[in-house]
Formats: sequence, structure tokens, C-alpha cells
Amino acid sequence: MTAKTKKILLNETELPTSWYNIVADMKTKPLPMLNPATKQAVSEEDLYPLFARELARQELNQNDTWIEIPDAVREQYKIYRPTPLVRAYGLEKALDTPAHIYFKNESVSPVGSHKLNSALPQAYYCKQDGATNITTETGAGQWGTALSFAAKVFGLELAVYMVKISYEQKPYRRSLMQTWGAQVIASPSMSTKAGRKILTAQPNYQGSLGTAISEAIELAMQTPNCKYALGSVLNHVSLHQTVIGLEAEKQMELAGEYPDVVIGCFGGGSNFSGICFPFLRHSLREGRKTRYIAAEPASCPKLTHGVFEYDFGDESGYTPLLPMFTLGHNFAPSNIHAGGLRYHGAGSIVSQLLRDGLIEAVDIKQLESFEAGVLFARSEGIVPAPESAHAIAAAINEALKAKEEGKRKTILFNLSGHGLIDMSAYDQYLSGNMINYSLEKEDIEKNIEKIEKQLR
Amino acid sequence: MTAKTKKILLNETELPTSWYNIVADMKTKPLPMLNPATKQAVSEEDLYPLFARELARQELNQNDTWIEIPDAVREQYKIYRPTPLVRAYGLEKALDTPAHIYFKNESVSPVGSHKLNSALPQAYYCKQDGATNITTETGAGQWGTALSFAAKVFGLELAVYMVKISYEQKPYRRSLMQTWGAQVIASPSMSTKAGRKILTAQPNYQGSLGTAISEAIELAMQTPNCKYALGSVLNHVSLHQTVIGLEAEKQMELAGEYPDVVIGCFGGGSNFSGICFPFLRHSLREGRKTRYIAAEPASCPKLTHGVFEYDFGDESGYTPLLPMFTLGHNFAPSNIHAGGLRYHGAGSIVSQLLRDGLIEAVDIKQLESFEAGVLFARSEGIVPAPESAHAIAAAINEALKAKEEGKRKTILFNLSGHGLIDMSAYDQYLSGNMINYSLEKEDIEKNIEKIEKQLR
Repeated sequence: MTAKTKKILLNETELPTSWYNIVADMKTKPLPMLNPATKQAVSEEDLYPLFARELARQELNQNDTWIEIPDAVREQYKIYRPTPLVRAYGLEKALDTPAHIYFKNESVSPVGSHKLNSALPQAYYCKQDGATNITTETGAGQWGTALSFAAKVFGLELAVYMVKISYEQKPYRRSLMQTWGAQVIASPSMSTKAGRKILTAQPNYQGSLGTAISEAIELAMQTPNCKYALGSVLNHVSLHQTVIGLEAEKQMELAGEYPDVVIGCFGGGSNFSGICFPFLRHSLREGRKTRYIAAEPASCPKLTHGVFEYDFGDESGYTPLLPMFTLGHNFAPSNIHAGGLRYHGAGSIVSQLLRDGLIEAVDIKQLESFEAGVLFARSEGIVPAPESAHAIAAAINEALKAKEEGKRKTILFNLSGHGLIDMSAYDQYLSGNMINYSLEKEDIEKNIEKIEKQLR
Repeated sequence: MTAKTKKILLNETELPTSWYNIVADMKTKPLPMLNPATKQAVSEEDLYPLFARELARQELNQNDTWIEIPDAVREQYKIYRPTPLVRAYGLEKALDTPAHIYFKNESVSPVGSHKLNSALPQAYYCKQDGATNITTETGAGQWGTALSFAAKVFGLELAVYMVKISYEQKPYRRSLMQTWGAQVIASPSMSTKAGRKILTAQPNYQGSLGTAISEAIELAMQTPNCKYALGSVLNHVSLHQTVIGLEAEKQMELAGEYPDVVIGCFGGGSNFSGICFPFLRHSLREGRKTRYIAAEPASCPKLTHGVFEYDFGDESGYTPLLPMFTLGHNFAPSNIHAGGLRYHGAGSIVSQLLRDGLIEAVDIKQLESFEAGVLFARSEGIVPAPESAHAIAAAINEALKAKEEGKRKTILFNLSGHGLIDMSAYDQYLSGNMINYSLEKEDIEKNIEKIEKQLR
């Protein structure tokens, strides 16, 4: 037997020193965020009340390609970074494919996902700005757990609005956040105007990221020295997540390969951007031909079935208007287990890249994602998060295509997190009781008509 | 800020090629296992019906210091090994101690604990022996999940008897085993004579490792081509776990330090042996003065409050008689959350080392362990398994002693696993509803009297 290298590791000294700001390299810049009242482009000052200054600056920065990572953040990154790049020999064998499959293993983070990559700098900049408190929302709970630890590290008090369906399906996530010292509230709640309004109209509403965002923003606006933090969608979040792809780029080089396809699951865009943007820079700059695939759930398919519109980032319309592929900000997604992908819109950078044909999107049904997840668990040992299982499903499809075509192809996907806290979902899948949610086209069209009418 | 190295990594090429067999270096060998009927020392042949040949050989091997790790096992180790050695800067700061605290992070294993280190070779050797099926027991579920993946890797069907209290407290562990394809039965069950006997006498008995072992052995004996596998206590399990300490030894050298104290939590001895034995070899060979501390739960204190006796390894007396520190093989431990430490006896090597004064033991109460676990989570990011929290508590005590004495001391402990699947336990702790189980001395004495009478 010849010894094969399974994990490609980097030392802490090779941790990226800067994040990559793709906007600086884009020929067509994303359209600006708009103030919903004036329809004027939003300025840094407009964002200050809610976000830390440096985060507002990063959000609108279109010029600097590289933005330095503060030392204090890099020190904390060392708890789990650089993460391993792994050759999926087991999965390749199970698929009997000529393709080489690699995954970036973000599941080794102590909070179980890539979300810590942005939670740490966000908490850091909020603290630098003199904040004592922060608020946020969380879908599956991955972002909330990450920010709970980050807030503890930098000495901030945190309140998390957790989408009710996840609050109930994933009690361990709530406990995790509490273990790190955060306060957790099921959303919609009666603690905010936004929550009360929704609960009064629909007492059994299971919640959505859009609603939870409204609640977290409202609390932040009413609390002194309080900032708000978001775990996806926004440009500065994608920026922080580029550490994933920057490390992966070095690691693929060490493996002596370059990906033909790069894949990430897609909710608001944070992990997809993180793995793809550093590789995309070679497509933008040198015209390198690489495919980038966003794998979204068939039940929340903004990239494959949504429209490109100015829309709100939240349910209640507290945010600026964002240029995004959207299903409508009051879209109520099905209760799929991949709670982190239940968001109505895509970040503005990704939306622009999709319009420009630089990236692709596929939609994956829930059963297909779990089938892929179980195959991955049995062949690679790691039980993936239901979100990440969408990326695995897309990678499997690409690997099977390579087999059909008899082509050697190098596939890289991001394993954004593990599923150890989502085992009730696997239980349901294994017992044959899982629903295969997907949207009917007319549901989507109805919803989009509604949102277009509102925005007119 | 000067950049500090947090994680000391090794490449896959530095994976140990052999396990360390401490028995070869011990001046006083452990007493032999005895056949309970004849009181004669057990031979390899006696062990064959139940164990794979090579495992039986390893169990009784007193001569070979190094035993080669099969290539196929090393390939699978690469999924997660070498594991990082981590400097606990966060914990040191929280304790304001002059001590340097290191931990070996076995929680990065995809099954969440060190148990895979022995599950992989055991499944491999069983397959080599022509087995199609294996059986085992599991306490907290860590061993069962590990063996489920290992059995899948090497193509074996697995049945796991899971201690009933854990089966109920930790449903996610059951789902994990099923995700990897194993059959899981709550123990005591009605599927074996041993289980039926106990359930008939005590219908609400919550189970124990001893009972589950009886059931797994009984099923293995009655199934063709079936072997039995055990996750702790036995010599060959400790042997496999030495990869932990062998890697840690190299890593401490890279860190430029040598531990004054090495600590592991203690159930049957597998992770304690794994971290300690490679360092102990320098104490045995060169008289190096290092302290080795086994941290056991106050509610199951065989090392600190048990007696050294020949006793059975299981509830029903199916195993050979083992020379061990024991609380009696029918000892019913309290329902503490550290299910992996609820075992009545200690492995025979560790027992001999304790008799010879080469190692020490401390007992830790449940509340103290969770207090330590939460402090660790908040300062180092990782939520530890309730079992591992005992080692953390002992490490904290040593670090605080160093602070009191104003001494620089190097402490190394094994983080045997993470607690992400034990969050209901943390919930209970944080809500103030946790019971601080510990045994009254007279309970222990009563129990030991009973077992002494039986064995006479």
C-alpha cells in the first residue's frame, strides 16, 4: 500500500494576514444599498448607529483588495485555524469516480462551523467601538453559537433571537449558546414590536431569519452602547469568510492541483463566498476557467428561481434595500432541517456575480441532501451539517458526471460544519419520515408578484 | 503583540508506526487474568472464541515493547490523526496561573472522542479473522459511535448494547450509531439471558457498563462468525490508545517543554493510559520524575476508594477474573452525566501501576467537573465531554496549586472528547438542577464486602 496524504495542513504562521475584498476586483460593482425612504445610496454614516464603524467601512469598501486582519482576531483564529484541506478518498471510492474530491473542513471549529470566522472580527470591532452589548439572530443556531463564544472572548453581552423552529428542533444549540454565556430568545417573540406584530397575525408562525433579524435590529436600536451583528448576506461577512478560500488555495497548491469546480452550500452566501472568492479572483484577473456552484435548497431557491430586485434583508423592512436575488422578504420557507439555508435573499456581491454569469446555482431537495450526508458520514467519518450536505450532494453530482464522461476532474467543496447537533434530522431521515419539501413554481411566482407590488 | 503558537501540529508522516506496550517495561508485571472455574491463568486460546486472534495475542503480550500498527489502520487514523496539542493560553489567563497548561485535543475525531483509536484496529483485526459480525457495549455512547464507524469502514455488522440511562439521556448518540449503520439496543434488554435476569429482578434498572458487557458477550457467543469488542479496561485497548501519548511526546518536544504532571480522566483506563504510558516509559526506564494523575468521578471511585481484588469485568460474571481496583462487579453507579466513567473497575495495568506508587488518583465531584467544563468552554472555545471535564478539573487544581506556590509547572491533560452531544447535561448544570453525587464511605464498604464474600 502506498501511503496517501489525506489531510493537507498549514501551520499557524501561514494563517492569512488579510481578508480578500472581491469587490475591488469586480468590473461590474454590485449595485449600492439604498435608504428605503430616500432611495439614495446608503453611506457609512447611515450604517454607524447599527454596526461598528470598521464593519460599516468594510461593508462599503470598493477599493482595497486586501484588508488586514487584526492581531487579536488572528490570535483567536488559532484556536481552530488553519483548518485542514482533506482529500475525500473514501467518498471517491464509494462513488467509483475518476474525479479527485477535496473538502475544506470547517467543521473542526469548536462551535462546529465556519461562522466563527466572522463572529470573532465582528465582536472585536464592536468592542473597539465601545459597545458593551450586541444582538443578533440565528437560524440553525450555527451563527448564534459562534457569536456567543466570540462575545465571551471580547467581553460583550449578547442577546440572540433564534428562529423558533430551530429553537425547538435544536435544543442543544440553545444550551451551547447559554454555556458560552449568551441570552437566547425564540423568535418571533413578544419582546419586540416586530415580533408582536407577527405573532398577533399568525400565533403559530415558526419563524424565519427575516423575522429574527427584525427583532435583533429593533433591540439593538433601543439599547444603549449596543451594536447589531449579522452572520451572512452582507459584504463584510463574506469578506471575513475569505480566510477559508485563501487557506484552501495554498493547500490545493501543496496538493499539486487546482480545482475545476468549487462548491458551497448557499443560504445568504457566507460560506459560499468564503470558499469561492479567493479562487474567483483568478477568474476575474486572469480569466481562469473555474466553475463555482452555489447549492441551495429546493425549498428556498432564490438563486435558481428568485428574481433580482431591490428588497429588504428582513421581514419588517428595518434594513436598507439590498440589490439581491430574492423570493420576497416576507417569504416563509418550509421547515427544512437546513435552518441556515432558510433565507429569502442572496448577498449583493453573489447576486451580481450570478447576473454576470461568473457563478452557477443548483437546487437540491431535502432527501437528496440527507442521502448525500449519510454516504459522506459512512465513507469519510464526518456527519455533515444538513446545510453542508447540500454542497456534498452537488459535489457528488459533479463526481458522477465526471465518471459518466470518463473525465478526471478536481472538485473542491466547503464542509461548512458538522451535524452532531442535528442528529434528530438524521433520525427522521433514517426512519423514513422525512418530507421532501420543494416549492411549486406557482407558489414562488405568487410570492414574487406580492413582493414586487409592495416595492413598486 | 508577539504571535504565540497555540496548536502544535504534526504531519501525517509523523503518525506513530507502532503502539507502545508498557507491560514489557514494567518490573512488576500485572497479575494474570484467571479462568474463574479453574483459577488458572488465561491463555491466548482461552480468549480466541470471543476476541480476534491478534487482539488476544496483544492482550497477553509481555515481551514486545513496540507493536506495529497495520497500514490499513494508519490510513484510517489519518482521517483525524495526528491530533493537535494545544497550549491553553485562555485557561491560563482565566486562572491567572504561572503554570503552562497543554491539552491533547482528541475531540477533533469525527466521532468526538479518542475511542476511534482502538475501534479501528479492533474492527480491522476482527475482519482479518474472518468475522462478519461484532458486538459491543457502550456507556456514554462514545465507544459505540466509534466502533460503528470502524465497523462500517472494515465491512462488519455491529450490534451495540447501550447503557439505558445513556440511551435515554443521549438520543443523539443512538442516532449517530445508526447513521453509521449499527444496530443499537438499550441495556438491560430482554434480548439476552443476562438482561432478562436483571430486568426481572429490577424492572427499572438504569443499566451499567457491567451489564451491557454481559449482554454483548452473550450475543457474540451465540452468533456465528461473531467477535466481541471492548472499548476500555483491557490491555490491548490501552495499547492502541498510546498513539495519543506518543504524538503528545513529539509535540511537547516541539514546544520545548516536558510535562511535570500528566492527567487523564478515568473510567476503565483507556484515555488515561493513552496519554500517560508513553511518558511513563521514561519514568520506568530512566527514573524521570513525572506525576500521573487519574481523575475519576467521586460517585464511582475505584482507584481512590476501591480495593485491589480479582473481580469480574462484567455484571454477570462472563469474563475472566481480572486483577483490579474495584468497587465490586455488581456495583450500581449513580446516574452521573459522565457515563463513560461509570465502570466498577480499573484495567489491570493501571491497577498494578497504582499499587506500585507510579501513578496517583483523585476523585472529582460532578458539580466541580461541570464548573471546570464551563470555564474551559468560555476560555478555550471547546465544550468538553463530561468525562473529559474531570481531567480539566484536576488540571485546574494543579494549576491553582502552582499559583499558590508561585511555581512554574508544566501540566498536560488529555481532552478525550467534546461535549456537543451532552448539552442536556450542561443545561441541567446551568439551570442549577444538577445533583452532586458522591458516595458515602459506608456504601462503598458494604458493596466491597458483598463482592469479597462472592469471590471467596
